[in-house]
Amino acid sequence: MIHIDSTSNMPIYQQIYEHLKRKIMAGTLKEGDKLTSTRVFAKNFCVARNTVENAYSQLCLEGYVLNKPGSGFIVQGMNDHLPSFLKNDLMHESQYAELERSSFEEPKVYLYDFQYGNLDILFPYSLWRRFTTEILLSFDAQRINSYNDKQGELDLRIEIMKYLQEARAVSCTPDQIVLCCGTQYALDMICKLFSDDGRKLAMEEPGYNGARTVFVNNGFEIIPIPIQSDGISIPDLERSSVKLTYITPSHQFPTGVVMPIQNRLHLLHWATQQNGIIIEDDYDSELRYHARPIPSLQSLDTSGRVIYLGTFSKSLSPGLRMGYMILPKWLLPKYHTMFAKYSSSIPWLEQKIVSLYMAGGHWERHIRKVCLYNKKKHDVMLKTITQLMGDKIIIQGNNAGLHILLQFVNGEKQNWLIDKAREYKVKVYPTSPFWHTKENASENTLLLGFSMLNEKEIVDGLTLLNKAWFDQ
Amino acid sequence: MIHIDSTSNMPIYQQIYEHLKRKIMAGTLKEGDKLTSTRVFAKNFCVARNTVENAYSQLCLEGYVLNKPGSGFIVQGMNDHLPSFLKNDLMHESQYAELERSSFEEPKVYLYDFQYGNLDILFPYSLWRRFTTEILLSFDAQRINSYNDKQGELDLRIEIMKYLQEARAVSCTPDQIVLCCGTQYALDMICKLFSDDGRKLAMEEPGYNGARTVFVNNGFEIIPIPIQSDGISIPDLERSSVKLTYITPSHQFPTGVVMPIQNRLHLLHWATQQNGIIIEDDYDSELRYHARPIPSLQSLDTSGRVIYLGTFSKSLSPGLRMGYMILPKWLLPKYHTMFAKYSSSIPWLEQKIVSLYMAGGHWERHIRKVCLYNKKKHDVMLKTITQLMGDKIIIQGNNAGLHILLQFVNGEKQNWLIDKAREYKVKVYPTSPFWHTKENASENTLLLGFSMLNEKEIVDGLTLLNKAWFDQ
Repeated sequence: MIHIDSTSNMPIYQQIYEHLKRKIMAGTLKEGDKLTSTRVFAKNFCVARNTVENAYSQLCLEGYVLNKPGSGFIVQGMNDHLPSFLKNDLMHESQYAELERSSFEEPKVYLYDFQYGNLDILFPYSLWRRFTTEILLSFDAQRINSYNDKQGELDLRIEIMKYLQEARAVSCTPDQIVLCCGTQYALDMICKLFSDDGRKLAMEEPGYNGARTVFVNNGFEIIPIPIQSDGISIPDLERSSVKLTYITPSHQFPTGVVMPIQNRLHLLHWATQQNGIIIEDDYDSELRYHARPIPSLQSLDTSGRVIYLGTFSKSLSPGLRMGYMILPKWLLPKYHTMFAKYSSSIPWLEQKIVSLYMAGGHWERHIRKVCLYNKKKHDVMLKTITQLMGDKIIIQGNNAGLHILLQFVNGEKQNWLIDKAREYKVKVYPTSPFWHTKENASENTLLLGFSMLNEKEIVDGLTLLNKAWFDQ
Repeated sequence: MIHIDSTSNMPIYQQIYEHLKRKIMAGTLKEGDKLTSTRVFAKNFCVARNTVENAYSQLCLEGYVLNKPGSGFIVQGMNDHLPSFLKNDLMHESQYAELERSSFEEPKVYLYDFQYGNLDILFPYSLWRRFTTEILLSFDAQRINSYNDKQGELDLRIEIMKYLQEARAVSCTPDQIVLCCGTQYALDMICKLFSDDGRKLAMEEPGYNGARTVFVNNGFEIIPIPIQSDGISIPDLERSSVKLTYITPSHQFPTGVVMPIQNRLHLLHWATQQNGIIIEDDYDSELRYHARPIPSLQSLDTSGRVIYLGTFSKSLSPGLRMGYMILPKWLLPKYHTMFAKYSSSIPWLEQKIVSLYMAGGHWERHIRKVCLYNKKKHDVMLKTITQLMGDKIIIQGNNAGLHILLQFVNGEKQNWLIDKAREYKVKVYPTSPFWHTKENASENTLLLGFSMLNEKEIVDGLTLLNKAWFDQ
């Protein structure tokens, strides 16, 4: 017997539908049973016949009953596939509240976090609001309703081309640029473009683990090639007989080594001879503090051996999820074939905002501001470390980017250093994750980022670290 | 002889650097040559010594020269890798202008475009602006400077969970939800999660080609399983001995078939027995016009065999690039292992906006509006076709979504139909791309979307089509 609740939020036809569905699933109504006719049902329960018809139609559509002309609505069999236990109970509102309250973050035990990657205060909030409004009020706004260019908006690609040409001597046309929701997405596409070449890839050792995981997830075997004082060891690369390599030549991650011009040319020579491909990840090249940025490897490449990657994460915002890759021209037909049916990975509105932002000259001003701001922090960091810790440590990878490495000359070990720092509520980071071959990892080197802290916090954090490590 | 132009935009130190670099690359300055000392250079060219030092430092950093204490700056050899031809000339401003003018779009030859996928007018522009401002002015705004949760913002996942529970009877907790920049990105992750199971996947035939291309690009072999009047043929699926299948049970793409409850249970039974995985793409389930939405397959799944996919593209905006997948709980450890170092594929700000939008009840109101709006267009479309073309065609897949199929009973062929329509400036679409095995493709069936046209345009477009096809 169905209880129809006319005060319920659930429409009456749905109550009827749910009631009958439950009876069929539970076996109370069996295969071949005939439902009460809509006329009789309506009369019995004092509801409109139309309401009952709606409920019955839904049951038909989903296959619970069949409307046989002349015979009425016949219950259909559930075969033998009715699950022995019913559907999990739904969650209740109280449980949502629980979830909303519970924090998934580690409780804040640290006073100073030398994290690498997150930025602090320079995001252009008010310009972002202004451009959002401008675009959403423009005639163009309707384009948010479309699937747009899989490579990204043309205006934005032109802006990126101009910027890279000026700042990084990159030579390309907009048709070579593919906007991506981050470097990892770009690397994933590259893996697909080169998946039929034996799936082997040479990587710097140590190198960027966020890239390594993408290669591994795409089934690539990683051939680690040692980093020396002048970048990736090219003789080792040559011996490896790998065709595809991922490198960070302008500011090697994490060691900070700059690859000198001779090695760049040597590497390009290798690629030209071996039909090799060099993936150049130029992740933080804007941020060089005591020299001009190093021109990109791509700018020296005359035979289309370099795929260039860049990102807005280090200078503008990691929360934007926006980067790009520049493919050599000969690779474009393959790209268009493989990804013909793909959609862009970046929202249209965000692309238009960044495009206006760059076209208005804000990006260049922003880069200068960010550079100056981070240079100050970098300089304070180096000065303080040198003053406090002197010859007990060697600083690696300075003068650029948002992090440095600290190597401990008296053999203090990574875990001990991290634990001691934690006692003083300072968070510092291991470098071991950057090694592919874990046994080779440097045991006495830490990574300290300075992008999230201000100058005072840097000094205070380092002072605590000095106490933690050396003030015995 | 260097010409220093003090009126140039290029800083003087950079002019010196470029000049010397060019001479080294051209071989005018050779390996072992000593640069003029900074003191003498400064005196000769009447520039500050500091300026010369900056130029020399940059050359050192990039490896062109070596600063040998006691001997000065010595030019370094380029080995034998100097490319025989120099870098491509840079593009000039006039060429940018060219690019900006040139349109990459097909000239607008069509009066009416029965395109599928793009939407028209209902995007909530003003709410989007309001929420953007609200979020960027809030304390939370600083989180745009961080790498955030790879699964997406918790608030948004909770909103999606509540919505899906209510609207699609989906049963999940927020930790099972992964926000993705579209269904293709979700499918790519799924391919990686199941890449060690022989890389075979069963797909509906015909089926969604945008999904197929992702599977193919991930090296999966596609086993096409015929679609019948009650959805994918389960006996064929069982015989295929495939473990992984991608289906659209609530509104099969493109045929519009609804899978009845018996088949749903049968399919789940198959998955439970065979340790199979069903990828349920519920791409347009909100849009059902003459019945309630069909409860999801996931809602019947009691043994964790279903991965559920949803998107905001069909009801809110394809330009947002936002969708989600819901993983069964047992798969979460593997997901977290494989993707531990991955970043989210969606901008933080956009996630916050959609979260506020849903939490404020706007999403539900929007869905109702969109449904009503598209129902009217759908009904006009069907009525007009029936009136005009009567029994010359069969309409497939009606009462839901944003498209229908037209099957021509007198054997008119796809290409002829498209060409004739084009003569009348109306664009209609083939269905052949949806077949994996091209020889099996239906030759007399077209796809007509109605999401981009209003009611009047639909009637006018169909009137022209009737002339084009039948008015001999």
